[in-house]
Amino acid sequence: MGKYKIIGEPLKNIPWEEKPSGNHDVIWRSDMNPIIKRDLLPTSNSIFNSAVVPYKDGFAGVFRCDDKRREMRIHAGFSDDGVHWNINPEPISFDCDIEQVKTFEYAYDPRVVWIEDRYYVTWCNGFHGPTIGIAYTYDFKTFHQLENAFLPFNRNGVLFPKKIDGHFAMLSRPSDTGHTPFGDIFYSESPDLEFWGRHRHVMAPRGWWQSTKIGAGPVPIETSEGWLLIYHGVLTSCNGYVYHFGAALLDLEKPWKVIARTEPYLLAPRELYECVGDVPNVVFPCAALTDSETGRIAIYYGGADTVTCLAYAQVDELIDFIKNNSKL
Amino acid sequence: MGKYKIIGEPLKNIPWEEKPSGNHDVIWRSDMNPIIKRDLLPTSNSIFNSAVVPYKDGFAGVFRCDDKRREMRIHAGFSDDGVHWNINPEPISFDCDIEQVKTFEYAYDPRVVWIEDRYYVTWCNGFHGPTIGIAYTYDFKTFHQLENAFLPFNRNGVLFPKKIDGHFAMLSRPSDTGHTPFGDIFYSESPDLEFWGRHRHVMAPRGWWQSTKIGAGPVPIETSEGWLLIYHGVLTSCNGYVYHFGAALLDLEKPWKVIARTEPYLLAPRELYECVGDVPNVVFPCAALTDSETGRIAIYYGGADTVTCLAYAQVDELIDFIKNNSKL
Amino acid sequence: MGKYKIIGEPLKNIPWEEKPSGNHDVIWRSDMNPIIKRDLLPTSNSIFNSAVVPYKDGFAGVFRCDDKRREMRIHAGFSDDGVHWNINPEPISFDCDIEQVKTFEYAYDPRVVWIEDRYYVTWCNGFHGPTIGIAYTYDFKTFHQLENAFLPFNRNGVLFPKKIDGHFAMLSRPSDTGHTPFGDIFYSESPDLEFWGRHRHVMAPRGWWQSTKIGAGPVPIETSEGWLLIYHGVLTSCNGYVYHFGAALLDLEKPWKVIARTEPYLLAPRELYECVGDVPNVVFPCAALTDSETGRIAIYYGGADTVTCLAYAQVDELIDFIKNNSKL
Amino acid sequence: MGKYKIIGEPLKNIPWEEKPSGNHDVIWRSDMNPIIKRDLLPTSNSIFNSAVVPYKDGFAGVFRCDDKRREMRIHAGFSDDGVHWNINPEPISFDCDIEQVKTFEYAYDPRVVWIEDRYYVTWCNGFHGPTIGIAYTYDFKTFHQLENAFLPFNRNGVLFPKKIDGHFAMLSRPSDTGHTPFGDIFYSESPDLEFWGRHRHVMAPRGWWQSTKIGAGPVPIETSEGWLLIYHGVLTSCNGYVYHFGAALLDLEKPWKVIARTEPYLLAPRELYECVGDVPNVVFPCAALTDSETGRIAIYYGGADTVTCLAYAQVDELIDFIKNNSKL
Amino acid sequence: MGKYKIIGEPLKNIPWEEKPSGNHDVIWRSDMNPIIKRDLLPTSNSIFNSAVVPYKDGFAGVFRCDDKRREMRIHAGFSDDGVHWNINPEPISFDCDIEQVKTFEYAYDPRVVWIEDRYYVTWCNGFHGPTIGIAYTYDFKTFHQLENAFLPFNRNGVLFPKKIDGHFAMLSRPSDTGHTPFGDIFYSESPDLEFWGRHRHVMAPRGWWQSTKIGAGPVPIETSEGWLLIYHGVLTSCNGYVYHFGAALLDLEKPWKVIARTEPYLLAPRELYECVGDVPNVVFPCAALTDSETGRIAIYYGGADTVTCLAYAQVDELIDFIKNNSKL
Amino acid sequence: MGKYKIIGEPLKNIPWEEKPSGNHDVIWRSDMNPIIKRDLLPTSNSIFNSAVVPYKDGFAGVFRCDDKRREMRIHAGFSDDGVHWNINPEPISFDCDIEQVKTFEYAYDPRVVWIEDRYYVTWCNGFHGPTIGIAYTYDFKTFHQLENAFLPFNRNGVLFPKKIDGHFAMLSRPSDTGHTPFGDIFYSESPDLEFWGRHRHVMAPRGWWQSTKIGAGPVPIETSEGWLLIYHGVLTSCNGYVYHFGAALLDLEKPWKVIARTEPYLLAPRELYECVGDVPNVVFPCAALTDSETGRIAIYYGGADTVTCLAYAQVDELIDFIKNNSKL
Repeated sequence: MGKYKIIGEPLKNIPWEEKPSGNHDVIWRSDMNPIIKRDLLPTSNSIFNSAVVPYKDGFAGVFRCDDKRREMRIHAGFSDDGVHWNINPEPISFDCDIEQVKTFEYAYDPRVVWIEDRYYVTWCNGFHGPTIGIAYTYDFKTFHQLENAFLPFNRNGVLFPKKIDGHFAMLSRPSDTGHTPFGDIFYSESPDLEFWGRHRHVMAPRGWWQSTKIGAGPVPIETSEGWLLIYHGVLTSCNGYVYHFGAALLDLEKPWKVIARTEPYLLAPRELYECVGDVPNVVFPCAALTDSETGRIAIYYGGADTVTCLAYAQVDELIDFIKNNSKL
Repeated sequence: MGKYKIIGEPLKNIPWEEKPSGNHDVIWRSDMNPIIKRDLLPTSNSIFNSAVVPYKDGFAGVFRCDDKRREMRIHAGFSDDGVHWNINPEPISFDCDIEQVKTFEYAYDPRVVWIEDRYYVTWCNGFHGPTIGIAYTYDFKTFHQLENAFLPFNRNGVLFPKKIDGHFAMLSRPSDTGHTPFGDIFYSESPDLEFWGRHRHVMAPRGWWQSTKIGAGPVPIETSEGWLLIYHGVLTSCNGYVYHFGAALLDLEKPWKVIARTEPYLLAPRELYECVGDVPNVVFPCAALTDSETGRIAIYYGGADTVTCLAYAQVDELIDFIKNNSKL
Repeated sequence: MGKYKIIGEPLKNIPWEEKPSGNHDVIWRSDMNPIIKRDLLPTSNSIFNSAVVPYKDGFAGVFRCDDKRREMRIHAGFSDDGVHWNINPEPISFDCDIEQVKTFEYAYDPRVVWIEDRYYVTWCNGFHGPTIGIAYTYDFKTFHQLENAFLPFNRNGVLFPKKIDGHFAMLSRPSDTGHTPFGDIFYSESPDLEFWGRHRHVMAPRGWWQSTKIGAGPVPIETSEGWLLIYHGVLTSCNGYVYHFGAALLDLEKPWKVIARTEPYLLAPRELYECVGDVPNVVFPCAALTDSETGRIAIYYGGADTVTCLAYAQVDELIDFIKNNSKL
Repeated sequence: MGKYKIIGEPLKNIPWEEKPSGNHDVIWRSDMNPIIKRDLLPTSNSIFNSAVVPYKDGFAGVFRCDDKRREMRIHAGFSDDGVHWNINPEPISFDCDIEQVKTFEYAYDPRVVWIEDRYYVTWCNGFHGPTIGIAYTYDFKTFHQLENAFLPFNRNGVLFPKKIDGHFAMLSRPSDTGHTPFGDIFYSESPDLEFWGRHRHVMAPRGWWQSTKIGAGPVPIETSEGWLLIYHGVLTSCNGYVYHFGAALLDLEKPWKVIARTEPYLLAPRELYECVGDVPNVVFPCAALTDSETGRIAIYYGGADTVTCLAYAQVDELIDFIKNNSKL
Repeated sequence: MGKYKIIGEPLKNIPWEEKPSGNHDVIWRSDMNPIIKRDLLPTSNSIFNSAVVPYKDGFAGVFRCDDKRREMRIHAGFSDDGVHWNINPEPISFDCDIEQVKTFEYAYDPRVVWIEDRYYVTWCNGFHGPTIGIAYTYDFKTFHQLENAFLPFNRNGVLFPKKIDGHFAMLSRPSDTGHTPFGDIFYSESPDLEFWGRHRHVMAPRGWWQSTKIGAGPVPIETSEGWLLIYHGVLTSCNGYVYHFGAALLDLEKPWKVIARTEPYLLAPRELYECVGDVPNVVFPCAALTDSETGRIAIYYGGADTVTCLAYAQVDELIDFIKNNSKL
Repeated sequence: MGKYKIIGEPLKNIPWEEKPSGNHDVIWRSDMNPIIKRDLLPTSNSIFNSAVVPYKDGFAGVFRCDDKRREMRIHAGFSDDGVHWNINPEPISFDCDIEQVKTFEYAYDPRVVWIEDRYYVTWCNGFHGPTIGIAYTYDFKTFHQLENAFLPFNRNGVLFPKKIDGHFAMLSRPSDTGHTPFGDIFYSESPDLEFWGRHRHVMAPRGWWQSTKIGAGPVPIETSEGWLLIYHGVLTSCNGYVYHFGAALLDLEKPWKVIARTEPYLLAPRELYECVGDVPNVVFPCAALTDSETGRIAIYYGGADTVTCLAYAQVDELIDFIKNNSKL
């Protein structure tokens, strides 16, 4: 119907609020923010940087829930409308029979994606340092953990929703042991989700809001104009990091080739729930729902590393914005 | 009356508010928070990390008041109800006849304790670096300063309310010259408050909320189950330190032996007055009042290094929580 | 009329609100704060650290507007009352025929001053590192850029409103390439605004609120008691920098000689718009309007590196405060 | 013949000097050290951290030659006796048809190994950060470059000389962008040298000489007691890093399982050519020749990141030393 | 006999070499340097920073011997002439019945002193961080370990050879957990070597060779002019620390009062054995022998944290030098 | 006579040694190195980074002599042959009547140049941080100090030997307060040596040996091909800084325009007197003598921040090398 097409299924019950009149931004926040408060679970310190997908008649998701030890765990959850969530009080316990891999250290910042016949979860997995864990599930009850994708140190591993040139494909950001003050987005392929290679460089940090490090956000959205990648970018102020998010269009067949990339950010911390919390001044997108019929996009993002928020965009507007404000 | 006993005097007029229904936390905040605002004194920049004790029919205390030079000083104050305070506009001026010791540099984060026949104040005292100053008073008007307990660099020196094995006993945290990124709690003894020794290691930082450094909070509370120690723990986020507090039970006779220690925190910065201020994301406990009859505990803590706050616990609930959530 | 004289023109329409009764501070905030919100321009991320002067029947100004790339630019603006502003959506484009100088990198933290026959703008100018850019304008439409005053690295270059001993005179703060953790105020002279020399040291950081670095704020105000210099001072907490401001009196003929300097600060971050934003805990003064008839002073300052604010003082009170609270 | 067996070919012309009488160390240096001086090539600044293998009737090698730009390159070379070398004045130019991979940034610290039918070279390869480059050659003239093994940041990638459980196997050390102050040895497998996975943790740094970071040295030597791994370990003194080397025995079938590991080092910087040079206090082993008949081992190592040196060991003595001085 | 008197026993067999003619320095090196090489023991990596005293007809000492694990241990040794030493191959094993204290972590930089009826050893003792260990011995065979003097973090604890005002007295340098970039010398007293207090500040670092940190060296030498303290001072160059040594005279009765202090250093790293080794550019004095009859002083110092060296001074010349080159 | 011309006076007695046969480097060291040892003066710790010029029938110079306080001072000296020097035991005492300027803090790394009618000395001058001091002399006995050229922080200020476009001209490197890890070469002009401006960027650090910072060395040499600038470049190894030197040709009329710049270095630390000393691994050129008749160039450079050395080049060879190995 619109100018540009989202390739994928329609999603009639996508969460949605119209853009307020007078608001000229390409992204607008939900009035219900934060949609998930930090203490939704009695044991949770915070619930944020979480991933949701359509599931049956509603939605399922994997949520980063730091508990009151401040230990980082991921939990499964379910929702009818994508806004009100039931999150399991118990963290996900993975099935795994690989001795070193099944030893749990920590898990955070999950992404979820449907590929071919099942859901895959990727997350930042503690394995003598952070790396990318992978598991699959059919029902968000049982999760089967596979080999870690990479050697440490890596964060923000995000699978493409379909194979590229016959291989699974992942974006990720090589990191270090701590609060890494650098970071580019790379692309890698795997024939089997066990062995990974064909590593390609996609994007480096550059001026201003994305000058310290960047990392892939939600699963890339396939569109008629290329893969729509929403990604976060970090600026270092004299009082710490500020996390924003922007977007890029990647080549459909060779996704390491960048077609367009926003010079301005799309969203920056402004609301109190983004500026005040366990890590002030963070907006961090981890998931997006899309409706191919209306072009609606609902973006789930963490606020201040404390709560879960929702923002909206319309694909025509968003892609036009990327193209018109692009600098490569 | 309860399951566990607080050893000590009853305190009928202990500040108290019942736990709000629906609140399942073991610690709950006062509705009057912050009970002392930053500008209670015309010259104060902030009033926080302060220590109170029962005194005559009411309460007395020693308060950290940073003035508008941001110089750190401690002031005496008095209150009828423990909530509304008259703080002396002039900082405490110590009597002292030891040449090097009486030279004032700065004073902060006081604790106050009654031992045998008088009140003792300990605080972080500037002496070519931070160390633990000690003074005593009978009336909170005249304060007699003794030798510093230790060589620099040390912070969070807290006396036990009675002698251990015939000696005065103190917890403290060796530090460095700046915003120390490490710190364990140690125990030391003194026959006379002039010479200190028999240093023992009590607890080290460990995972998550208490991974950077820990330090003793209020004067340890004697209970039937051991010394109840409320202590702060610090996590380093990419935007700075976050201060929480938890608790431990120490052996009554050999207090360097830890019986139980909370794996989750008891309180973390959540309210605006804890998250926003001169140092964002700080809750820092320095004193507790207890009523041996009812088992009520009122905890005084600093919020955001800016204001003074009050929280409550009930001893049975608190000790059960420590035991049930302990990891050594 | 008052005890002390501001040397200069009367300014009948100076923005003004009386000090609230019960407020005993020498500086008081506008009830309209922040007078300029971060999104006054559709493309602006933030508008702060800005400079205003009387212009024709109203006011003109140069504003730091970080756009949504977080790129730092300065824009001209106009106002009838000094409170409500029309800011040009386009940044200032300088006329300049010096090859290396005209290459624009970034511009921030402007000051504006009338000297003899025209307005001069100084700002932190990107030239292989930050240094002090200089331009002049007659109409706030066309700006003629001159040579940079100094080699990098320098920030907070502020011209005196009249020549000193026949030379243009500037205060500045030598810096480094990043978030400089040190910084003194120096004084320099120039016969022609092209060559600079006779560098003199004015003030170093010292205790507490001004212990990390200091920098000149608004254009010095000539008074019967000396040059009234409002300046910012920075303290390093464990969670980053805190920016306050204080004031000094400098010798009228040899302005590198300090007559008086406030030991306490004048203003510190307390309001939400000063404590929460892109850089928490910042008040940063860049301009002041004065009325020589009434002794009123209106100070423009940035809040949290995000918004523009206004505060007031009365010259008699302010100079008395400086003299009575001075430590050299 | 000896107590323990080296699995492999005899090497009659292995470089060899008997251990000096009176020397009780398990490793002894060549009297000819440094065997390759820094200026063997007219354009070389230094030649060190280099890899040699038996080739035809003599030896071939790949040498790290930093040129006088201090650019890091690797060169092929040939020798009759393993001591006197002809190094090509031109660096190796790789055949490669993968667009991003063939873009050369830098190459250093090579290892060479014969597997099945050809020689493989691995090295630290600049690819938006250091990672492990792989190439093969039949003749040390033409080198075919394959995909990089891993995402950055990685150093010290060392292939096993035969497949493990049907897969190529590599040890490596994940790193960061600079002079990485941490580093463990990991193990990875590949079916095809294109995709890598099954990452396992092998060894972490621990006390004293190996407390900062460790990394695999020469290609592991297959023995009757397990894979003999010589590895370097780094200690951080107040004047920088000190590089030593020690050894471990790894399980033949599951090489990530450590059987024995030396608590003392085998060799530490003592000679002037190890203590003085471009990086003082470095011994860094990159290759070993072994003779299965006599149990002789000749170890090639870099001295002070400047010259190439040779040291000797006897397999029985060395394995006994590892077993007798092991701590896991 | 001389101008100034060393208070103490004559020592006829003090090691001695006359000052070479033409050498005008107040301190001159032994021609036999290094008198103890790094590999005197088969297991030693280095032997340095060691302490000797007259014992029976010859000399005894306690030596820092880092073994080939680079673990830091102290060993006893004996010598007839103070130059040629037999060092026990086994490190000292302390008798101790205090549970936490007897747990050995590491021991380095010992000092030895005779007080009243026995020899006392102090050293940097690992106890959850470095602090000052104390033991006594009658025969350098059995060593009885007492309580640690202080809480961590402390280094360079040096006892006075007699009681001051009836108390044991110690100089020490509070430190941090690593390669401490600061450090003053403090003085403390103890009635019983178990409890310590009356802490006094003695000297801070200051300009140039002693600008980073300072620490007491040998046991203070009692002279007619005051306690003669030889101490090390550290400068931070762009390539790390440089350790020198100088001297001061302290008041005999109140040793925290400095009478004189050398502005120039006495000895700086110049010889290859001082400039090249495990830590380049270190001279570090730990002991001195004195002959009250001739005024001869033999100073033992570590070279490059690797070997043990000897230098000489004559008391008249040395005290004159201190007085003539003093700056307080 | 040669291919390229040095513009200037002949210098028959220029120090000279022919290039050793077999040496193919463009720069060769003196066999007499170090020509000035560290202890030439009884009070000197080191003599290095020094500047010499032809003077009368011989040579005069200004020498950096760090004394045994490690205080940095500059001394005048004289020589008949440019190799054997008499250095005044007393540091230069400047005539100066500018109150703030005449306050001496420290002086190091001098350069000397003859312009028009007198000798000018520039050096790194302590003035609330390092900046460029300027003085002139006719006789190397009396030195008249002028205004500092710039605000702090600056190092390596080097005057051109003649006016450029009617102005004095200087190269310098803006720095920070410590061991600056960055630094470009800038160009500035002055009508009168009192006021400076027209700042231009000349060269930034770039790959490898010159990747951390660069700074002008000797006074630029005027040649037929442009200003010949010998400059130092610094690489950061994991064990600190390594100082090399290379060369560039600058436009004769607009010296901020670079005509050619060596990609390889000209000289790097290799000799023991360059690799071992107070700062290991430093060659630092500060002066050059040239003979326009023969094209001979004698370069004075500091070794290891400890001694003074001499190296030679021939102008034809050197300029060809620069042109043939240039990368802009």
